[in-house]
Amino acid sequence: MTDTSKSASSAAASSMWGGRFAGGPAAIMQRINASIDFDKRLYAQDIRGSKAHCRMLVKQGILTQADGDAILAGLDTVLAEIEAGSFPFSMALEDIHMNVESRLAELIGEAAGRLHTARSRNDQVATDFRLWVRDALDGMEKALQGLQAALIARAGEHAGTVMPGFTHLQAAQPVTMGHHLMAYVEMIGRDRGRLTDARARLNESPLGSAALAGTSFPIDRHFTAEQLGFDRPMNNSLDGVSDRDFALEFMAAAAICAVHLSRLAEELVIWTSAQFRFVKLSDAFTTGSSIMPQKRNPDAAELIRAKTGRVIGDLNALLIVMKGLPLAYSKDMQDDKEPVFEVADTMELAIAAMTGMIADMTVNTEVLAAAAGAGFTTATDIADWCVRELKMPFRRAHHVAGSLVKLAEDKGCDLQDLSLAEMQGIEAGITEQARAVLAVDSSVASRTSFGGTAPANVRAQVAAAKSRWL
Amino acid sequence: MTDTSKSASSAAASSMWGGRFAGGPAAIMQRINASIDFDKRLYAQDIRGSKAHCRMLVKQGILTQADGDAILAGLDTVLAEIEAGSFPFSMALEDIHMNVESRLAELIGEAAGRLHTARSRNDQVATDFRLWVRDALDGMEKALQGLQAALIARAGEHAGTVMPGFTHLQAAQPVTMGHHLMAYVEMIGRDRGRLTDARARLNESPLGSAALAGTSFPIDRHFTAEQLGFDRPMNNSLDGVSDRDFALEFMAAAAICAVHLSRLAEELVIWTSAQFRFVKLSDAFTTGSSIMPQKRNPDAAELIRAKTGRVIGDLNALLIVMKGLPLAYSKDMQDDKEPVFEVADTMELAIAAMTGMIADMTVNTEVLAAAAGAGFTTATDIADWCVRELKMPFRRAHHVAGSLVKLAEDKGCDLQDLSLAEMQGIEAGITEQARAVLAVDSSVASRTSFGGTAPANVRAQVAAAKSRWL
Amino acid sequence: MTDTSKSASSAAASSMWGGRFAGGPAAIMQRINASIDFDKRLYAQDIRGSKAHCRMLVKQGILTQADGDAILAGLDTVLAEIEAGSFPFSMALEDIHMNVESRLAELIGEAAGRLHTARSRNDQVATDFRLWVRDALDGMEKALQGLQAALIARAGEHAGTVMPGFTHLQAAQPVTMGHHLMAYVEMIGRDRGRLTDARARLNESPLGSAALAGTSFPIDRHFTAEQLGFDRPMNNSLDGVSDRDFALEFMAAAAICAVHLSRLAEELVIWTSAQFRFVKLSDAFTTGSSIMPQKRNPDAAELIRAKTGRVIGDLNALLIVMKGLPLAYSKDMQDDKEPVFEVADTMELAIAAMTGMIADMTVNTEVLAAAAGAGFTTATDIADWCVRELKMPFRRAHHVAGSLVKLAEDKGCDLQDLSLAEMQGIEAGITEQARAVLAVDSSVASRTSFGGTAPANVRAQVAAAKSRWL
Amino acid sequence: MTDTSKSASSAAASSMWGGRFAGGPAAIMQRINASIDFDKRLYAQDIRGSKAHCRMLVKQGILTQADGDAILAGLDTVLAEIEAGSFPFSMALEDIHMNVESRLAELIGEAAGRLHTARSRNDQVATDFRLWVRDALDGMEKALQGLQAALIARAGEHAGTVMPGFTHLQAAQPVTMGHHLMAYVEMIGRDRGRLTDARARLNESPLGSAALAGTSFPIDRHFTAEQLGFDRPMNNSLDGVSDRDFALEFMAAAAICAVHLSRLAEELVIWTSAQFRFVKLSDAFTTGSSIMPQKRNPDAAELIRAKTGRVIGDLNALLIVMKGLPLAYSKDMQDDKEPVFEVADTMELAIAAMTGMIADMTVNTEVLAAAAGAGFTTATDIADWCVRELKMPFRRAHHVAGSLVKLAEDKGCDLQDLSLAEMQGIEAGITEQARAVLAVDSSVASRTSFGGTAPANVRAQVAAAKSRWL
Repeated sequence: MTDTSKSASSAAASSMWGGRFAGGPAAIMQRINASIDFDKRLYAQDIRGSKAHCRMLVKQGILTQADGDAILAGLDTVLAEIEAGSFPFSMALEDIHMNVESRLAELIGEAAGRLHTARSRNDQVATDFRLWVRDALDGMEKALQGLQAALIARAGEHAGTVMPGFTHLQAAQPVTMGHHLMAYVEMIGRDRGRLTDARARLNESPLGSAALAGTSFPIDRHFTAEQLGFDRPMNNSLDGVSDRDFALEFMAAAAICAVHLSRLAEELVIWTSAQFRFVKLSDAFTTGSSIMPQKRNPDAAELIRAKTGRVIGDLNALLIVMKGLPLAYSKDMQDDKEPVFEVADTMELAIAAMTGMIADMTVNTEVLAAAAGAGFTTATDIADWCVRELKMPFRRAHHVAGSLVKLAEDKGCDLQDLSLAEMQGIEAGITEQARAVLAVDSSVASRTSFGGTAPANVRAQVAAAKSRWL
Repeated sequence: MTDTSKSASSAAASSMWGGRFAGGPAAIMQRINASIDFDKRLYAQDIRGSKAHCRMLVKQGILTQADGDAILAGLDTVLAEIEAGSFPFSMALEDIHMNVESRLAELIGEAAGRLHTARSRNDQVATDFRLWVRDALDGMEKALQGLQAALIARAGEHAGTVMPGFTHLQAAQPVTMGHHLMAYVEMIGRDRGRLTDARARLNESPLGSAALAGTSFPIDRHFTAEQLGFDRPMNNSLDGVSDRDFALEFMAAAAICAVHLSRLAEELVIWTSAQFRFVKLSDAFTTGSSIMPQKRNPDAAELIRAKTGRVIGDLNALLIVMKGLPLAYSKDMQDDKEPVFEVADTMELAIAAMTGMIADMTVNTEVLAAAAGAGFTTATDIADWCVRELKMPFRRAHHVAGSLVKLAEDKGCDLQDLSLAEMQGIEAGITEQARAVLAVDSSVASRTSFGGTAPANVRAQVAAAKSRWL
Repeated sequence: MTDTSKSASSAAASSMWGGRFAGGPAAIMQRINASIDFDKRLYAQDIRGSKAHCRMLVKQGILTQADGDAILAGLDTVLAEIEAGSFPFSMALEDIHMNVESRLAELIGEAAGRLHTARSRNDQVATDFRLWVRDALDGMEKALQGLQAALIARAGEHAGTVMPGFTHLQAAQPVTMGHHLMAYVEMIGRDRGRLTDARARLNESPLGSAALAGTSFPIDRHFTAEQLGFDRPMNNSLDGVSDRDFALEFMAAAAICAVHLSRLAEELVIWTSAQFRFVKLSDAFTTGSSIMPQKRNPDAAELIRAKTGRVIGDLNALLIVMKGLPLAYSKDMQDDKEPVFEVADTMELAIAAMTGMIADMTVNTEVLAAAAGAGFTTATDIADWCVRELKMPFRRAHHVAGSLVKLAEDKGCDLQDLSLAEMQGIEAGITEQARAVLAVDSSVASRTSFGGTAPANVRAQVAAAKSRWL
Repeated sequence: MTDTSKSASSAAASSMWGGRFAGGPAAIMQRINASIDFDKRLYAQDIRGSKAHCRMLVKQGILTQADGDAILAGLDTVLAEIEAGSFPFSMALEDIHMNVESRLAELIGEAAGRLHTARSRNDQVATDFRLWVRDALDGMEKALQGLQAALIARAGEHAGTVMPGFTHLQAAQPVTMGHHLMAYVEMIGRDRGRLTDARARLNESPLGSAALAGTSFPIDRHFTAEQLGFDRPMNNSLDGVSDRDFALEFMAAAAICAVHLSRLAEELVIWTSAQFRFVKLSDAFTTGSSIMPQKRNPDAAELIRAKTGRVIGDLNALLIVMKGLPLAYSKDMQDDKEPVFEVADTMELAIAAMTGMIADMTVNTEVLAAAAGAGFTTATDIADWCVRELKMPFRRAHHVAGSLVKLAEDKGCDLQDLSLAEMQGIEAGITEQARAVLAVDSSVASRTSFGGTAPANVRAQVAAAKSRWL
């Protein structure tokens, strides 16, 4: 039944591994198989999980108190060694779990071999990784709160600062800078909500699922769950070792958040161009040029925009990795960590940089005011006035406003510069009162509908957001 | 300032549009710009939104009762026409909103022009699409409940049916089919949770955001929100017209769910192979061959697996579309609908097909039982016995079990077939009692830890799941 | 061995399919399984392939001349019916192949049943789809040639039109509009190269691979390959029916091309903003507003930018669908067509719209000239002069230029407005000759290095591009 | 025009950066901005490019021979320091270019400042990265040749080894293992073709594009292109610094190749299951378990399958990063390197591991032979015999074969076990000769159509592949 020509072909193949793979099959396998290079980031979670497991084994009488004490003390030593940078990580020991257990055995002897009772690397890594992602969720949620704080603070300052509101990057109607910034507070609020929901869903303990089927030892999964801050143990051991939803949901929430950051980043890049000059970023978040001192490249904004691609790519990667995997554990799932780590690191940096840019930027209020009124941005206001005061159907009022704009454009002036007579030549019902609605400040002040851009509204939203989000 | 060579180059360019674009620029623009081909699916939501807006305008005195009545009646007529298939959709009218309003004007005259007061297509489409996605979320959540029902029913039947539990697609330890199916009930439960959370976050009304800045008309956004079943109006008008989080979150939840379905689909494909024969799918969900009647291709399972790619692709597409868009509305956002429609349609079909397959499949209990015991799958049980009864450290117990397996393998027999003497030759402490743990049924029955595979556990989980999920 | 509880559970499940799936399992299966809704687009390729196969069977004596003639005539009738819109497509017949064969049988009787000799749907669909993608490649390559023609034409007109060259969206150095447009000619040239390479790799015939193993009939695959314009038959029948590289490579090339289009589209959106006003798009490719006639929303550019997301999403989808599929045919592969169709349709439209916009746009040369000189964009030129004429190390020359810019900035003037004495106060070696390099036109004209922006270079590149690409 | 409230808000914001970002804005900016952590991998390319640039400057008289000699010697020293591991990389110096230049200045003084004449970091990094990707393309192409060698060698051994050919993972018709493996040789051949095409398209030099506009120095770009092994300089300086097609095309080719590897990996996972047992992987490429020595987890195959997700994710990431970037250089483009590095590293490892697995695996020929004949896999052969010998239409012949299978199934025997009389009961024309086609070996041997699975064909393909690919 075996393949008699094996040896010859094998020899031939080995010669192919000359060069970089001089070590032959074993070296390749070690490189593709070992995860210690990246999963060592789980060391604190791994030790925390082992300590909870150990305490539970003692409580249940599965482990003696003496063994338990030795293990707990030994784990503390391991933790201290790792944090001191003196721990000798070994690729031959493959992963963080075996590195820790092996060192524990050196420190405390045979008792170390009792720690793995009623446990498997499958539920151990699921527990470690879940704890790590929970920390990442918490950290990201807190960072987003900081970004909201910066946005709300600037929105409060600029509740009355007019600027053009854009659609299609064409000026459409005046709004206030405070209103614009508060739109991002809403988006970030939803991002925080997604993280909170993901955390609640994640917060169940896989520990005790063992290899995949549970165990015959009289363990207490509720105890370890509680020790590790989980709300409850997971209901199904097969699910416990094969589920990576928590990582996917974290990355999906991060990807949507990254899209939000990319929108603000794009605006900062456009707003700091010489043609817009709406805001000026601080020295800290731009790079200059020794030869062109006026140049303030918005590098941080560009990098935040770019990071969106990386985060979406990572989400995509893990969705693909998980696609079509039969239960329970498959080795494919080892490829879950690097994308998640990259997302967490990337988002931490991007949120911090965005927070810094927003907090430090200078708003060019005069440039904004001039831009807010250019391009007949209050034409809608005169149309609305016709509807309100003259009871015109909206579609006809739109036509009147269009004719007024056409006249102003032909004359090369602003709408406000048309005489009353000229306006009445187009629509007899127009009065001096109508002309008042054409000023940018009037326009903005009139948008008092709930959620509208009127400065009084914005100040109210700022106050509400402070108490809701900060 | 203009470009004098324009006419000539334009003429040259037009000649390039011979062939399929005989209509020239206008034809191309109409084709790329018009959305009516796909957004007509929003007709019911569009009319529902318009009716709520109309009632509010009347309530606030912005519209007369007579105009309001005419509009409501007219909209009902339009709805009836569309549902009867007699509505003349026009690509020249671009989108569903203009198609409806234009027909309304034909039906009721000038009053139709008053409906758009204090509204814009920007907040109108945001409202329509949000309502549509809400319906899709509800539909998907209900469909998933149906899938859980099918899984729970079959799990109850097979709470005691043993099968091999796999890791790396290698038999590892025996589990029960009921336990295996219940793992999917957990996954689908989290999927439902994500949909529920997404729905709560989506359920705010953008209506009244107008073009982007709110409006000066004394509208009542809380009233329209309530009329449309929203929990509240959105806080910020710029956010109201530019947010597409609700679509992204729906697709992200769907993508994770699709990954779950793909895992079960993969298992069905493998389980129905001639080599596994674990289950048999019903005629309804397989295709045969006139020449090979034994062949039952698991087409539905394969297609469900494939759909994962489509759903992830759609999520990816919209994340990319939204990346880097400045506020507020950009035309790019018109490309939000087709991916969402495809996801909703795809998931509806995939969930229904999976539900059908699970409900109809025949479980080959004898094949499963034979496979469950093959390959020394209870070796862990003897190791655990050594830890429990002989107080061995787990790592040493593992070594004992390994030696027993090696002996059985060398003798070409199962572990149970080793004599007590043979076993004691490896570890003197082994007794007859130890041999009892080697039977598959004993192994499975012993896994009574919370979440473990013991039939009693599975039955309890089935009961709990029924009351939690159905 | 069977599962006795099947009937009961099945009945329960069926009740779940009330509502939309009233037809029960069969209806769901038909909907998820049938491909005729989309694969009918392959009708011309399917009939062309069948005719080639038929002629070969006759040539090889596998089919009689009479049967062959009847089949060919019948297929022509089917083709005519489909093109006339009178063909009765049936979902029950699943796909285009069975629809055509079934109709053929109605038309010519039993001989129709001989057409499928030595053929399978597996190699038939592979052949059809390959022919379709080949046509799509050809169509896209030709459309890109049209876009290059438009770009080259405009580049020729604007070889000397100065504009700011940007890095980080900050003005860096002056360039010419012609040079800028020619950069896209290069990109599109590489896109065409990728399509050409993909076509060459695709152009092998899978026909005759049969189900997966080849056939025992004495077929002539070289003959059918030649009949269908393929360069040769594929070497391996398993590969013949399972390969979808050609679709993936088409989509990958399209995705890179879409990224190019998105970059130009982004520039058009930014350039047409009120703040930039670099170009004006024609009425045909913008949408206006009845109320704001000055508003020219660059809808087509925004949609082209958005389409990038859709195309990348489709590529991603098929890569995922194909991941991990064992040989040979799996039903998953039926999900290859819709993404490819969407990519082909999307790219056709996006390229046509971009071609139209470029051909029709008006270039605001005066605005560009003013922007080109703003922001000390020629500071590098004075630094280069110092290196060239004063033999300064570049890093020191940079410092001199920086000091000059600082002085001009403090005085609120341009570099050219500094007096010679002021300049010599910073660097004694500066002469009148040095001041000449500060003019935008001089700067641009001096960039004569190969590939540089000097107008003479651009004209030479335009001429070369015409002969290379058009 | 400035924003007077800046200082206060800035102070507030700084307090947010307590904790991990104790350094404040500058620390965040350095972390997000610096690329030295990853772009140091470009050191060899950077130095090679600088040396070519230096030689050209001397040749053109822009640099003195003495300065040139000092620079070349200094760069060699830097290279030696880096390769010896003694080079002091500094994050403050941001990137590899500044690290090298700064060290060069320490080594040789002011002459170092002349090296950057007529060059910019924009064209420098484009050159470095292009050279790196070219090496990666070459390395991957060579590694794939090694994989083909392993596949061809095993295919030659198993040209006559029968196995079931699958569709839908259901046995369909017998094929040979050699034929199956040769299908992958075809796929990998196309992969190599894509790499070769990408290399040809990449192989143009951006060096001399300078910042974006070219330069006024009399440089010789053809000389530097030749020095660096490029076929020619790029035609357009704006394109030179903004193009990243070469990275995208490399990753697209890698993604398609990864899909191929994932298909073979999936087969290995399935084939090594206890239920299939088609092949046995060597110890080197599996992991065992101390307790279940029979368990040979196919970790390497699983990891290769998973890597597909990572590679597709990286391709996706860079496509997204590049979407919508205006010309020329944007900082976003700094995010091009990490995805490309990950793809190159991942593919190197995956290809090596796959090569090793194929070369080392044991083929269970007896298991394969038994499986090849199970399930009436030669039913098509009897149908084809009816068509060929009895001149039946194929569709009717299919029906006859189906009836024979039905009879055998009812009798619980194989097709070959039916008596001639039983067969003639179904179709009178059947003779003893017909029964011969039912043997697996006959079936396989009869598939002599070009590309078919007959052993003689496979041997011919093996010979042809050796001369074509190795």
